[in-house]
Amino acid sequence: MSDFDYDLCVIGSGPAGQKCAVQAAKFGKRVCVIERKQVVGGVAINTGTIPSKALREAILHMTGFGERSFLGQSYQVKKDITVQDLTSWCQHIIRNEVDVVGAQLTRNDVEIIYGEGALDGPHRVSITQGGREQTITSRFIFIGTGTRPLRPDDIEFDHEHIVDADGILTLPRLPRTMIVVGGGVIGTEYASMMQAVGVKVTLIEGQDGLLSFLDHEIQEALQYHLRQNGMTLRMGEKVVKIEKVEANINTRNSTGVLVEAMLESGKVLRAETLLYAVGRQGATNALQLDSVGLEADKRGRIRVNKHYQVLAPKTAELAVAAGAPSPVGAGDQPDAPAFDGHIYAGGDVIGFPALASTSMEQGRLAACHMFGVSFQSFPEHFPFGVYAVPEMSMVGWTEQQLTEQDVPYESGIARYREIARGQLLGDEDGMLKLLVHPETKHILGIHCIGTGATELIHIGQAVMALNGTVDYFVNAVFNYPTLAECYKVAALNVVNKLSHL
Amino acid sequence: MSDFDYDLCVIGSGPAGQKCAVQAAKFGKRVCVIERKQVVGGVAINTGTIPSKALREAILHMTGFGERSFLGQSYQVKKDITVQDLTSWCQHIIRNEVDVVGAQLTRNDVEIIYGEGALDGPHRVSITQGGREQTITSRFIFIGTGTRPLRPDDIEFDHEHIVDADGILTLPRLPRTMIVVGGGVIGTEYASMMQAVGVKVTLIEGQDGLLSFLDHEIQEALQYHLRQNGMTLRMGEKVVKIEKVEANINTRNSTGVLVEAMLESGKVLRAETLLYAVGRQGATNALQLDSVGLEADKRGRIRVNKHYQVLAPKTAELAVAAGAPSPVGAGDQPDAPAFDGHIYAGGDVIGFPALASTSMEQGRLAACHMFGVSFQSFPEHFPFGVYAVPEMSMVGWTEQQLTEQDVPYESGIARYREIARGQLLGDEDGMLKLLVHPETKHILGIHCIGTGATELIHIGQAVMALNGTVDYFVNAVFNYPTLAECYKVAALNVVNKLSHL
Repeated sequence: MSDFDYDLCVIGSGPAGQKCAVQAAKFGKRVCVIERKQVVGGVAINTGTIPSKALREAILHMTGFGERSFLGQSYQVKKDITVQDLTSWCQHIIRNEVDVVGAQLTRNDVEIIYGEGALDGPHRVSITQGGREQTITSRFIFIGTGTRPLRPDDIEFDHEHIVDADGILTLPRLPRTMIVVGGGVIGTEYASMMQAVGVKVTLIEGQDGLLSFLDHEIQEALQYHLRQNGMTLRMGEKVVKIEKVEANINTRNSTGVLVEAMLESGKVLRAETLLYAVGRQGATNALQLDSVGLEADKRGRIRVNKHYQVLAPKTAELAVAAGAPSPVGAGDQPDAPAFDGHIYAGGDVIGFPALASTSMEQGRLAACHMFGVSFQSFPEHFPFGVYAVPEMSMVGWTEQQLTEQDVPYESGIARYREIARGQLLGDEDGMLKLLVHPETKHILGIHCIGTGATELIHIGQAVMALNGTVDYFVNAVFNYPTLAECYKVAALNVVNKLSHL
Repeated sequence: MSDFDYDLCVIGSGPAGQKCAVQAAKFGKRVCVIERKQVVGGVAINTGTIPSKALREAILHMTGFGERSFLGQSYQVKKDITVQDLTSWCQHIIRNEVDVVGAQLTRNDVEIIYGEGALDGPHRVSITQGGREQTITSRFIFIGTGTRPLRPDDIEFDHEHIVDADGILTLPRLPRTMIVVGGGVIGTEYASMMQAVGVKVTLIEGQDGLLSFLDHEIQEALQYHLRQNGMTLRMGEKVVKIEKVEANINTRNSTGVLVEAMLESGKVLRAETLLYAVGRQGATNALQLDSVGLEADKRGRIRVNKHYQVLAPKTAELAVAAGAPSPVGAGDQPDAPAFDGHIYAGGDVIGFPALASTSMEQGRLAACHMFGVSFQSFPEHFPFGVYAVPEMSMVGWTEQQLTEQDVPYESGIARYREIARGQLLGDEDGMLKLLVHPETKHILGIHCIGTGATELIHIGQAVMALNGTVDYFVNAVFNYPTLAECYKVAALNVVNKLSHL
């Protein structure tokens, strides 16, 4: 028996922390989770994933009607919809998810300690709440504190005109015009939702395209559709100043205030609201990493090795410098020596991809590694989901990655408009692409944009993971009419192309 | 070179005929398709699958709003919705699908001959249109003429009060009350749709339960939900008389007519409209099967062996008598001698399961067998989809089949309400069940009821077909939030149960 109070102390109860704690508890370990908020679940449940998906769900149903118009004039949309109209219905979902997570922790005898956790020596963690402090000891520590929106000091966030990703969900009204700064997952998701619900959106991104980890054909399709829907994209632009100005135009914006964004290129943009979504900051300030000789990078994030052990500061710098290309979805953590094997980190706080799904897996894998339990994991088969409008998902390699690495491939495409289910859904723009090795016929990558993409990708993911070939899709029988038929159409497309070689 | 005009003559251009013709054409064969209607596509596109799914789509969106009510009073439903309101938007889908099928046939150099086809000797087919007749010869013949609704002579079908599955789509108005006779796929689908849109439905079925091929737990869930939604189910009841009567109650039914159904048990039911959906009749009358010594059974259907070759009459009787239990989805055709190897049949005309998806596969397999091309097929992994409200799908074996055959299994269940995506969809009732072999851990069956069931089933279908085990689901990473997470929850449920053994 160890002399520690716990075998594992998890700081943060988001997806990574939860799964790490529960996995360790299932191994029979004594585990505690420290949570600084009054509810468990982290950003995923409380202010991020769930509320944004609820907003999206509401918007899709409103606009889905308009686009398909299959009920003619049967429906009338209420005027002056507020963000609260669109999200208030999700409060019970949030409560439910919080209950589910809390119940899961409790059922597995994981102790939940509410308060702000900080390192206080290699195996000590202090927890402060309401001025009271306690200290516990633990053999292993897992940091899953997540991120918060990056809020530069010179931007005057005010919950109404200039907001971050947390603030957009409590906007007092839907603006008529909006500037979104940042074309990453969060910026793109919100920009596309707002555009879909009728807000005139300008999206500004420093790089040449949105979501640079996407397959370029999907990225291009996304950008095309956003522009078709009326969005203005400003790529390769940098915002140098953001400030509020008096509006001298006639506007329903009763406060008479507009936000002005000045770009380095000299352009000046104005809108009723600006969403600042340029990355997120690791929530590591309060952790006192320096008390054990660790440090976060300049964006507050923690570097780990492939076992999710926190790297020693020197190693972390080297790892950042190396930055070799890797398949999206594969753990891109280096095989480097850890600072001191017993401190782990996972989830958004370690950076890309910062998705709830991968965070859960990171937590689980960290727990397995700590306690020497062997595990199966298929990092190259981690799916990626982006809940923009349109929805996107991918698994495996992109065309550009395969080309860079001199891996030959053939591609096959199915368009939703070619299949009955796509027609029924009224989704004319959706597509699914298979990338297939011309000799082995194995699936190298699957890329999907359109309705249900995040669900659909799992069919191909299973075939990839179980080493199936494109012939599986050619020979499989799919329900009719389903979107799953896209796999067959795309597979036949590949096979036909290959037959000409 | 043969002396025949064609290598293959396909009679009927529904899913089975299409795929048979295209497959043979891809083998370089001379193929013609005979279609008696003015458009290709058969019942699936023109009067059955597509229009009924379009109706369902419209109803789901209307009622989905009501149930979730996440937009509060933002929407108002138009009063007095007609069936035309709900289905007219699908006319362009039908046109599109007809175009797709026609283009596919033409692109593959399949000749389309419009007219009524009939056998005129072993290798001769006569085609009659508008009084003109032509005759062609063909080495092989494939019969894919499908079915039509069964219409007993003593029932007075009138397109308004008493209708069959074709007639329901052109009802002049949505009735307030409806009797549905027949709890098969078509009866259950329409009954559940009508109930969902607010019609008060009584469903009468001669057997003890609806859709007897379903896993009993799913069947029970279906019946429970239909009843919860207000439907009256009358099982094990037989209708002895159906007639129109004068209504002496106050009704918006302006014609003052009600339909009365008398049951053998003495009950008398009345409603504004009655849908008669007791099975379908093989469309074989015009084929002149007797001209080559063949015959259909008393419901007009054709018996085939496992290669889809039409059986000799004597053999057909024996095969019917044998009727051994077989996994749902596996071809249940006996390995019996054919009448004369060159006449094949597939699709609805050969009976169960009569789904577009399996019909396509039957057509394809028949073509492969004719021309001696080897093929892969996984009949035990054919999925089944029922587009009722709620939607259902299954692949593999049911619990009762496994028990009958003394195959041990453990089951694991995930309920939609336990996962985030289910909460977002507002689907409290959905569930997914895995049946797993306790030693090999292979997946024996997957049964799903709820939103997206027909898509979701394909993930598990791939794992079954590629010989994966339940561990695949335990270890896979799924996008969050998706319904696909049900697989992980259900798999963990199985694994936990097995760990107690």
